[in-house]
Amino acid sequence: MTPDEAFARCDDDFQAKMAFMAEIDQLKNVLRKGWLHDQSRRENSAEHSWHIALMALLFADRANHPIDVLKTLKMILIHDIVEIDAGDTFLYASNRDAQSSVEQCAAERIFGLLPAPYGQEFMDLWQEFTLRTSPEARYAAAIDRMEPLTRNIMSHGRIWHEQDICSEQVLTKNAHIADGATDLWHIAEELLNRAIDDGHLKRKKKP
Amino acid sequence: MTPDEAFARCDDDFQAKMAFMAEIDQLKNVLRKGWLHDQSRRENSAEHSWHIALMALLFADRANHPIDVLKTLKMILIHDIVEIDAGDTFLYASNRDAQSSVEQCAAERIFGLLPAPYGQEFMDLWQEFTLRTSPEARYAAAIDRMEPLTRNIMSHGRIWHEQDICSEQVLTKNAHIADGATDLWHIAEELLNRAIDDGHLKRKKKP
Repeated sequence: MTPDEAFARCDDDFQAKMAFMAEIDQLKNVLRKGWLHDQSRRENSAEHSWHIALMALLFADRANHPIDVLKTLKMILIHDIVEIDAGDTFLYASNRDAQSSVEQCAAERIFGLLPAPYGQEFMDLWQEFTLRTSPEARYAAAIDRMEPLTRNIMSHGRIWHEQDICSEQVLTKNAHIADGATDLWHIAEELLNRAIDDGHLKRKKKP
Repeated sequence: MTPDEAFARCDDDFQAKMAFMAEIDQLKNVLRKGWLHDQSRRENSAEHSWHIALMALLFADRANHPIDVLKTLKMILIHDIVEIDAGDTFLYASNRDAQSSVEQCAAERIFGLLPAPYGQEFMDLWQEFTLRTSPEARYAAAIDRMEPLTRNIMSHGRIWHEQDICSEQVLTKNAHIADGATDLWHIAEELLNRAIDDGHLKRKKKP
Protein backbone atom coordinates (compact mmCIF):
# COMPACT_ATOMS: atom_id res chain seq x y z
CA MET A 1 0.00 0.00 0.00
CA THR A 2 1.42 3.44 -0.85
CA PRO A 3 1.84 5.98 1.95
CA ASP A 4 -0.91 8.06 0.31
CA GLU A 5 -3.32 5.14 0.66
CA ALA A 6 -2.09 4.05 4.08
CA PHE A 7 -2.26 7.47 5.69
CA ALA A 8 -5.07 9.07 3.67
CA ARG A 9 -7.13 9.85 6.77
CA CYS A 10 -4.23 11.32 8.77
CA ASP A 11 -3.39 15.02 8.95
CA ASP A 12 -1.48 16.59 6.04
CA ASP A 13 1.75 17.08 8.00
CA PHE A 14 1.83 13.41 9.04
CA GLN A 15 1.01 12.25 5.51
CA ALA A 16 3.80 14.32 3.94
CA LYS A 17 6.39 13.21 6.47
CA MET A 18 5.41 9.55 6.07
CA ALA A 19 5.63 9.86 2.27
CA PHE A 20 9.21 11.05 2.80
CA MET A 21 9.90 8.26 5.30
CA ALA A 22 8.66 5.64 2.81
CA GLU A 23 10.61 7.19 -0.05
CA ILE A 24 13.93 7.18 1.77
CA ASP A 25 13.55 3.48 2.59
CA GLN A 26 15.08 3.02 -0.86
CA LEU A 27 18.46 4.28 0.37
CA LYS A 28 18.80 0.85 2.02
CA ASN A 29 19.10 -0.63 -1.48
CA VAL A 30 21.74 1.80 -2.76
CA LEU A 31 25.04 -0.06 -2.60
CA ARG A 32 28.40 1.62 -2.17
CA LYS A 33 31.69 0.32 -3.51
CA GLY A 34 32.95 -0.48 -0.02
CA TRP A 35 32.50 -3.78 1.80
CA LEU A 36 31.42 -4.56 5.35
CA HIS A 37 34.37 -5.35 7.61
CA ASP A 38 33.49 -9.06 7.47
CA GLN A 39 33.73 -8.78 3.63
CA SER A 40 30.33 -10.53 3.30
CA ARG A 41 28.65 -7.87 1.15
CA ARG A 42 28.84 -4.27 0.03
CA GLU A 43 27.68 -1.56 2.43
CA ASN A 44 24.49 0.36 1.65
CA SER A 45 24.17 4.12 1.96
CA ALA A 46 21.58 4.08 4.76
CA GLU A 47 23.69 2.00 7.15
CA HIS A 48 26.79 4.01 6.10
CA SER A 49 24.93 7.19 7.16
CA TRP A 50 24.18 5.66 10.55
CA HIS A 51 27.78 4.59 11.00
CA ILE A 52 29.35 7.95 10.19
CA ALA A 53 26.78 9.79 12.33
CA LEU A 54 28.28 7.90 15.28
CA MET A 55 31.81 8.57 14.06
CA ALA A 56 30.99 12.28 13.86
CA LEU A 57 29.86 12.20 17.49
CA LEU A 58 33.05 10.48 18.59
CA PHE A 59 35.50 12.80 16.87
CA ALA A 60 33.71 16.15 17.24
CA ASP A 61 36.47 17.30 19.58
CA ARG A 62 38.91 17.01 16.66
CA ALA A 63 36.98 19.36 14.36
CA ASN A 64 39.07 22.36 13.33
CA HIS A 65 36.49 24.75 14.76
CA PRO A 66 33.78 24.37 17.40
CA ILE A 67 30.77 22.85 15.67
CA ASP A 68 27.04 22.60 16.23
CA VAL A 69 26.85 18.82 16.65
CA LEU A 70 23.09 18.58 16.07
CA LYS A 71 23.42 20.44 12.77
CA THR A 72 26.32 18.15 11.81
CA LEU A 73 24.26 15.04 12.56
CA LYS A 74 21.32 16.31 10.52
CA MET A 75 23.67 16.91 7.58
CA ILE A 76 25.10 13.43 7.84
CA LEU A 77 21.72 11.74 8.18
CA ILE A 78 20.49 13.33 4.93
CA HIS A 79 23.75 13.65 2.94
CA ASP A 80 23.27 10.57 0.75
CA ILE A 81 19.49 10.64 0.27
CA VAL A 82 19.93 12.06 -3.26
CA GLU A 83 21.50 8.72 -4.22
CA ILE A 84 18.01 7.24 -4.36
CA ASP A 85 17.69 8.94 -7.75
CA ALA A 86 21.33 9.60 -8.61
CA GLY A 87 22.95 6.37 -7.40
CA ASP A 88 26.14 6.18 -5.39
CA THR A 89 29.01 7.74 -7.36
CA PHE A 90 32.38 6.20 -6.62
CA LEU A 91 34.77 8.78 -5.18
CA TYR A 92 37.25 8.16 -8.00
CA ALA A 93 34.70 7.94 -10.85
CA SER A 94 35.34 10.15 -13.89
CA ASN A 95 31.68 11.25 -14.11
CA ARG A 96 31.56 12.49 -10.54
CA ASP A 97 31.23 16.18 -11.41
CA ALA A 98 28.53 15.51 -14.00
CA GLN A 99 26.47 13.94 -11.24
CA SER A 100 25.88 17.23 -9.47
CA SER A 101 22.89 18.36 -11.57
CA VAL A 102 21.29 14.92 -11.21
CA GLU A 103 21.78 15.14 -7.47
CA GLN A 104 20.36 18.67 -7.37
CA CYS A 105 17.15 17.44 -9.06
CA ALA A 106 17.01 14.49 -6.67
CA ALA A 107 17.32 16.78 -3.67
CA GLU A 108 14.51 18.99 -4.94
CA ARG A 109 12.24 16.02 -5.59
CA ILE A 110 12.86 14.08 -2.39
CA PHE A 111 13.19 16.91 0.14
CA GLY A 112 10.22 18.47 -1.70
CA LEU A 113 8.03 15.68 -0.35
CA LEU A 114 8.30 17.23 3.12
CA PRO A 115 6.27 20.13 4.53
CA ALA A 116 8.01 23.33 3.45
CA PRO A 117 10.03 24.27 6.56
CA TYR A 118 11.49 20.76 6.85
CA GLY A 119 12.11 20.40 3.12
CA GLN A 120 13.83 23.77 2.99
CA GLU A 121 15.97 23.02 6.03
CA PHE A 122 17.14 19.70 4.56
CA MET A 123 17.76 21.31 1.16
CA ASP A 124 19.86 24.05 2.79
CA LEU A 125 21.79 21.53 4.89
CA TRP A 126 22.44 19.33 1.87
CA GLN A 127 23.72 22.28 -0.19
CA GLU A 128 25.92 23.40 2.68
CA PHE A 129 27.34 19.89 3.02
CA THR A 130 27.91 19.55 -0.72
CA LEU A 131 29.64 22.93 -1.06
CA ARG A 132 31.40 22.63 2.33
CA THR A 133 30.54 26.21 3.23
CA SER A 134 30.58 25.93 7.04
CA PRO A 135 32.70 24.32 9.77
CA GLU A 136 29.95 21.73 10.26
CA ALA A 137 29.90 20.88 6.55
CA ARG A 138 33.69 20.63 6.36
CA TYR A 139 33.79 18.41 9.43
CA ALA A 140 30.92 16.20 8.19
CA ALA A 141 32.65 15.88 4.81
CA ALA A 142 35.90 14.97 6.58
CA ILE A 143 34.17 12.15 8.48
CA ASP A 144 32.45 10.99 5.29
CA ARG A 145 35.93 10.53 3.74
CA MET A 146 37.78 9.30 6.82
CA GLU A 147 35.50 6.34 7.51
CA PRO A 148 35.89 4.65 4.07
CA LEU A 149 39.62 5.39 4.17
CA THR A 150 40.01 3.54 7.48
CA ARG A 151 37.75 0.77 6.09
CA ASN A 152 40.15 0.37 3.16
CA ILE A 153 43.13 0.32 5.49
CA MET A 154 41.55 -2.52 7.45
CA SER A 155 40.80 -4.56 4.31
CA HIS A 156 44.40 -4.23 3.01
CA GLY A 157 43.13 -1.86 0.34
CA ARG A 158 40.53 -4.19 -1.17
CA ILE A 159 38.69 -1.39 -3.03
CA TRP A 160 41.90 0.27 -4.17
CA HIS A 161 43.00 -3.01 -5.74
CA GLU A 162 39.56 -3.82 -7.18
CA GLN A 163 39.20 -0.39 -8.74
CA ASP A 164 42.85 0.18 -9.72
CA ILE A 165 43.30 3.25 -7.52
CA CYS A 166 46.78 4.66 -6.84
CA SER A 167 48.13 6.67 -3.93
CA GLU A 168 48.05 10.00 -5.73
CA GLN A 169 44.31 9.63 -6.33
CA VAL A 170 43.67 8.72 -2.71
CA LEU A 171 45.72 11.63 -1.42
CA THR A 172 44.09 14.13 -3.78
CA LYS A 173 40.50 13.02 -3.26
CA ASN A 174 40.77 12.86 0.52
CA ALA A 175 42.89 15.94 1.17
CA HIS A 176 39.87 18.03 2.17
CA ILE A 177 39.67 15.98 5.36
CA ALA A 178 42.24 18.59 6.51
CA ASP A 179 39.69 21.39 5.99
CA GLY A 180 37.36 19.84 8.57
CA ALA A 181 39.75 18.07 10.92
CA THR A 182 43.47 18.61 10.33
CA ASP A 183 44.35 16.16 13.04
CA LEU A 184 42.42 13.35 11.33
CA TRP A 185 44.13 14.15 8.03
CA HIS A 186 47.56 13.77 9.65
CA ILE A 187 46.48 10.34 10.87
CA ALA A 188 45.14 9.50 7.40
CA GLU A 189 48.44 10.47 5.78
CA GLU A 190 50.37 8.22 8.15
CA LEU A 191 47.99 5.34 7.51
CA LEU A 192 48.26 5.81 3.74
CA ASN A 193 52.04 5.97 3.81
CA ARG A 194 52.14 2.73 5.72
CA ALA A 195 49.64 1.17 3.28
CA ILE A 196 51.99 2.15 0.43
CA ASP A 197 55.00 0.67 2.24
CA ASP A 198 53.09 -2.54 2.93
CA GLY A 199 51.98 -2.88 -0.69
CA HIS A 200 48.26 -2.34 0.00
CA LEU A 201 48.15 0.90 -1.99
CA LYS A 202 50.25 1.17 -5.11
CA ARG A 203 52.10 4.31 -6.17
CA LYS A 204 51.07 4.21 -9.83
CA LYS A 205 48.09 2.96 -11.83
CA LYS A 206 48.48 -0.05 -14.12
CA PRO A 207 50.01 1.07 -17.45
CA MET B 1 43.32 -6.66 9.58
CA THR B 2 41.93 -5.98 13.07
CA PRO B 3 41.57 -2.37 14.22
CA ASP B 4 44.33 -3.04 16.77
CA GLU B 5 46.69 -3.96 13.94
CA ALA B 6 45.51 -1.30 11.54
CA PHE B 7 45.73 1.60 13.98
CA ALA B 8 48.56 0.38 16.25
CA ARG B 9 50.66 3.48 15.64
CA CYS B 10 47.80 5.96 16.18
CA ASP B 11 47.02 7.67 19.48
CA ASP B 12 45.10 5.71 22.14
CA ASP B 13 41.91 7.74 21.82
CA PHE B 14 41.78 7.17 18.04
CA GLN B 15 42.54 3.46 18.44
CA ALA B 16 39.78 2.93 21.00
CA LYS B 17 37.18 4.80 18.96
CA MET B 18 38.10 2.92 15.80
CA ALA B 19 37.84 -0.40 17.66
CA PHE B 20 34.28 0.63 18.56
CA MET B 21 33.58 1.75 14.99
CA ALA B 22 34.75 -1.61 13.61
CA GLU B 23 32.79 -3.55 16.25
CA ILE B 24 29.49 -1.84 15.52
CA ASP B 25 29.82 -2.63 11.81
CA GLN B 26 28.25 -5.94 12.82
CA LEU B 27 24.92 -4.25 13.50
CA LYS B 28 24.52 -4.17 9.70
CA ASN B 29 24.17 -7.95 9.81
CA VAL B 30 21.56 -8.06 12.58
CA LEU B 31 18.24 -8.62 10.85
CA ARG B 32 14.92 -7.49 12.23
CA LYS B 33 11.58 -9.19 11.66
CA GLY B 34 10.34 -6.33 9.49
CA TRP B 35 10.76 -6.06 5.72
CA LEU B 36 11.87 -3.17 3.54
CA HIS B 37 8.94 -1.39 1.90
CA ASP B 38 9.76 -3.08 -1.42
CA GLN B 39 9.50 -6.43 0.44
CA SER B 40 12.84 -7.54 -1.06
CA ARG B 41 14.55 -8.42 2.23
CA ARG B 42 14.40 -7.93 5.99
CA GLU B 43 15.63 -4.65 7.43
CA ASN B 44 18.83 -4.60 9.48
CA SER B 45 19.23 -2.77 12.77
CA ALA B 46 21.84 -0.27 11.53
CA GLU B 47 19.72 1.07 8.69
CA HIS B 48 16.66 0.99 10.98
CA SER B 49 18.56 3.24 13.41
CA TRP B 50 19.34 5.69 10.60
CA HIS B 51 15.72 5.70 9.49
CA ILE B 52 14.20 6.38 12.89
CA ALA B 53 16.81 9.06 13.63
CA LEU B 54 15.32 10.98 10.71
CA MET B 55 11.78 10.21 11.87
CA ALA B 56 12.65 11.55 15.32
CA LEU B 57 13.83 14.80 13.72
CA LEU B 58 10.62 15.15 11.73
CA PHE B 59 8.18 14.57 14.59
CA ALA B 60 10.05 16.26 17.46
CA ASP B 61 7.32 18.91 17.56
CA ARG B 62 4.85 16.19 18.54
CA ALA B 63 6.80 15.03 21.61
CA ASN B 64 4.74 15.37 24.78
CA HIS B 65 7.37 17.63 26.34
CA PRO B 66 10.09 19.83 24.89
CA ILE B 67 13.07 17.59 24.18
CA ASP B 68 16.80 17.93 23.67
CA VAL B 69 16.92 16.75 20.06
CA LEU B 70 20.67 16.05 20.03
CA LYS B 71 20.34 13.83 23.10
CA THR B 72 17.40 12.06 21.46
CA LEU B 73 19.41 11.41 18.29
CA LYS B 74 22.35 10.04 20.26
CA MET B 75 19.99 7.66 22.06
CA ILE B 76 18.49 6.46 18.81
CA LEU B 77 21.84 6.00 17.08
CA ILE B 78 23.07 3.69 19.87
CA HIS B 79 19.81 2.08 21.03
CA ASP B 80 20.21 -1.19 19.12
CA ILE B 81 23.99 -1.68 19.35
CA VAL B 82 23.52 -4.29 22.11
CA GLU B 83 21.89 -6.51 19.48
CA ILE B 84 25.36 -7.33 18.15
CA ASP B 85 25.66 -9.71 21.11
CA ALA B 86 22.03 -10.15 22.10
CA GLY B 87 20.37 -10.35 18.68
CA ASP B 88 17.19 -8.56 17.70
CA THR B 89 14.35 -9.64 19.95
CA PHE B 90 10.96 -9.58 18.28
CA LEU B 91 8.63 -7.16 20.05
CA TYR B 92 6.12 -9.95 20.69
CA ALA B 93 8.64 -12.66 21.67
CA SER B 94 7.98 -14.49 24.93
CA ASN B 95 11.67 -14.31 25.98
CA ARG B 96 11.85 -10.55 25.64
CA ASP B 97 12.20 -9.83 29.35
CA ALA B 98 14.88 -12.50 29.80
CA GLN B 99 16.95 -10.68 27.21
CA SER B 100 17.58 -7.71 29.48
CA SER B 101 20.57 -9.18 31.33
CA VAL B 102 22.13 -10.31 28.04
CA GLU B 103 21.68 -6.80 26.68
CA GLN B 104 23.18 -5.28 29.82
CA CYS B 105 26.33 -7.38 29.38
CA ALA B 106 26.45 -6.43 25.71
CA ALA B 107 26.20 -2.74 26.55
CA GLU B 108 29.03 -3.03 29.06
CA ARG B 109 31.25 -4.89 26.61
CA ILE B 110 30.64 -2.78 23.51
CA PHE B 111 30.38 0.71 25.05
CA GLY B 112 33.34 -0.35 27.18
CA LEU B 113 35.51 -0.32 24.05
CA LEU B 114 35.31 3.47 24.05
CA PRO B 115 37.40 5.93 26.07
CA ALA B 116 35.70 6.31 29.46
CA PRO B 117 33.74 9.56 29.03
CA TYR B 118 32.21 8.38 25.73
CA GLY B 119 31.55 4.87 26.94
CA GLN B 120 29.89 6.15 30.09
CA GLU B 121 27.76 8.65 28.17
CA PHE B 122 26.52 5.95 25.78
CA MET B 123 25.89 3.55 28.67
CA ASP B 124 23.86 6.19 30.49
CA LEU B 125 21.91 7.08 27.36
CA TRP B 126 21.20 3.43 26.62
CA GLN B 127 19.95 2.82 30.18
CA GLU B 128 17.80 5.92 30.02
CA PHE B 129 16.33 4.78 26.70
CA THR B 130 15.71 1.26 27.96
CA LEU B 131 14.04 2.39 31.18
CA ARG B 132 12.30 5.36 29.53
CA THR B 133 13.22 7.66 32.39
CA SER B 134 13.22 11.01 30.56
CA PRO B 135 11.10 12.86 27.99
CA GLU B 136 13.82 12.18 25.38
CA ALA B 137 13.81 8.46 26.15
CA ARG B 138 10.02 8.25 26.06
CA TYR B 139 9.91 10.11 22.75
CA ALA B 140 12.73 8.02 21.23
CA ALA B 141 10.96 4.84 22.36
CA ALA B 142 7.71 6.12 20.83
CA ILE B 143 9.41 6.66 17.47
CA ASP B 144 11.08 3.24 17.71
CA ARG B 145 7.58 1.71 17.98
CA MET B 146 5.74 4.02 15.60
CA GLU B 147 7.98 3.38 12.59
CA PRO B 148 7.54 -0.42 12.49
CA LEU B 149 3.83 0.03 13.16
CA THR B 150 3.44 2.27 10.10
CA ARG B 151 5.62 -0.18 8.14
CA ASN B 152 3.21 -2.96 9.02
CA ILE B 153 0.25 -0.82 8.05
CA MET B 154 1.79 -0.24 4.61
CA SER B 155 2.48 -3.95 4.06
CA HIS B 156 -1.12 -4.94 4.95
CA GLY B 157 0.18 -6.40 8.19
CA ARG B 158 2.72 -8.80 6.67
CA ILE B 159 4.58 -9.38 9.96
CA TRP B 160 1.38 -9.64 11.98
CA HIS B 161 0.21 -12.41 9.66
CA GLU B 162 3.62 -14.13 9.49
CA GLN B 163 4.03 -14.14 13.26
CA ASP B 164 0.38 -14.74 14.22
CA ILE B 165 0.01 -11.45 16.09
CA CYS B 166 -3.45 -10.18 17.12
CA SER B 167 -4.75 -6.68 17.76
CA GLU B 168 -4.64 -6.93 21.53
CA GLN B 169 -0.91 -7.70 21.42
CA VAL B 170 -0.24 -4.80 19.08
CA LEU B 171 -2.23 -2.37 21.21
CA THR B 172 -0.59 -3.52 24.46
CA LYS B 173 3.00 -3.56 23.19
CA ASN B 174 2.77 -0.19 21.49
CA ALA B 175 0.69 1.73 24.03
CA HIS B 176 3.76 3.43 25.49
CA ILE B 177 3.95 5.50 22.31
CA ALA B 178 1.46 7.66 24.21
CA ASP B 179 4.02 8.32 26.95
CA GLY B 180 6.36 9.99 24.46
CA ALA B 181 3.97 11.42 21.90
CA THR B 182 0.26 11.17 22.67
CA ASP B 183 -0.64 12.63 19.33
CA LEU B 184 1.23 9.87 17.45
CA TRP B 185 -0.51 7.23 19.58
CA HIS B 186 -3.92 8.62 18.59
CA ILE B 187 -2.89 8.28 14.95
CA ALA B 188 -1.60 4.75 15.63
CA GLU B 189 -4.91 3.74 17.22
CA GLU B 190 -6.85 4.98 14.20
CA LEU B 191 -4.51 3.18 11.81
CA LEU B 192 -4.82 -0.05 13.81
CA ASN B 193 -8.60 0.14 13.98
CA ARG B 194 -8.73 0.53 10.23
CA ALA B 195 -6.29 -2.38 9.79
CA ILE B 196 -8.64 -4.53 11.90
CA ASP B 197 -11.65 -3.43 9.83
CA ASP B 198 -9.78 -4.16 6.61
CA GLY B 199 -8.71 -7.63 7.79
CA HIS B 200 -4.98 -6.84 7.95
CA LEU B 201 -4.84 -7.30 11.71
CA LYS B 202 -6.95 -10.01 13.28
CA ARG B 203 -8.78 -9.64 16.57
CA LYS B 204 -7.78 -13.03 17.99
CA LYS B 205 -4.84 -15.43 17.65
CA LYS B 206 -5.29 -18.76 15.88
CA PRO B 207 -6.80 -21.33 18.30
